[in-house]
Amino acid sequence: MSSAPVSPADRRFVTVTETVTEISPFTLNAWMSRPDIVPCRDVLLVRATMEPGFCHPFHHHPTREEIIYVVSGQAEQWCGDSYRVLKPGEMVLIPKGEVHGTYNPFREPVVFLAILSPAEAAGPDMVDSSGEAPWLGKREALGLPACVMRPV
Amino acid sequence: MSSAPVSPADRRFVTVTETVTEISPFTLNAWMSRPDIVPCRDVLLVRATMEPGFCHPFHHHPTREEIIYVVSGQAEQWCGDSYRVLKPGEMVLIPKGEVHGTYNPFREPVVFLAILSPAEAAGPDMVDSSGEAPWLGKREALGLPACVMRPV
Repeated sequence: MSSAPVSPADRRFVTVTETVTEISPFTLNAWMSRPDIVPCRDVLLVRATMEPGFCHPFHHHPTREEIIYVVSGQAEQWCGDSYRVLKPGEMVLIPKGEVHGTYNPFREPVVFLAILSPAEAAGPDMVDSSGEAPWLGKREALGLPACVMRPV
Repeated sequence: MSSAPVSPADRRFVTVTETVTEISPFTLNAWMSRPDIVPCRDVLLVRATMEPGFCHPFHHHPTREEIIYVVSGQAEQWCGDSYRVLKPGEMVLIPKGEVHGTYNPFREPVVFLAILSPAEAAGPDMVDSSGEAPWLGKREALGLPACVMRPV
């Protein structure tokens, strides 16, 4: 075994050492599959931790399909105009371009995997829809607790 | 809320009720993202449980990239000619066509997510490589414990 640095093209295994962490306005991210880590072409994978009271408000990905899979805690997960409280082992499939959002009005962090495909795509990664009808005020109209983002 | 059956084209959320279970020679599978469950085009997702002493021996997927992400337990995970013991929260990226295998010589089940992309692809889903050089006898030469498959 050599201790020389492994280039992303040669890396296959991703443990905590190889993970790339990032703070976003919504979550604490541990990137595991991304072209700067492994030679992925089709699948991006990030493990995200969303603290109590936080959210990733209504948005969409114009160029990628997404799966959100809950590892621990629970998420108020929206897709289109409906939501479910997803528990560990449950998921949502979000077709390309479909508006969705993840909210944590609960008392514990929610940890989820976000799986996006393809890995490389032209155009914006994400488009915010939270200020537009019919998403603006949609949760509030249902009496759901307000959630915030981190100022970054 | 209606109790009418939801068609795969209209389904987004997948809980234990919507999961499709299957017994394979290697694992007990809970399919979550597959075209008969949700309208996925890019990502297949299955949660697999491999019992102690079982394996999915060396094979490859000619048409799909794969990620294996360990949820609980541990896996002796091969990719190309090297392996790592993956623990919960760790993964391997397997480029399209690269030979790999998952072995559980440990004393507890290993639960992992297999993520494959794209969802639909022409050609065989899987090609067995375990009877060919250099894979045949590779683990045994290292003194690693034999693992079996379920007769189905």
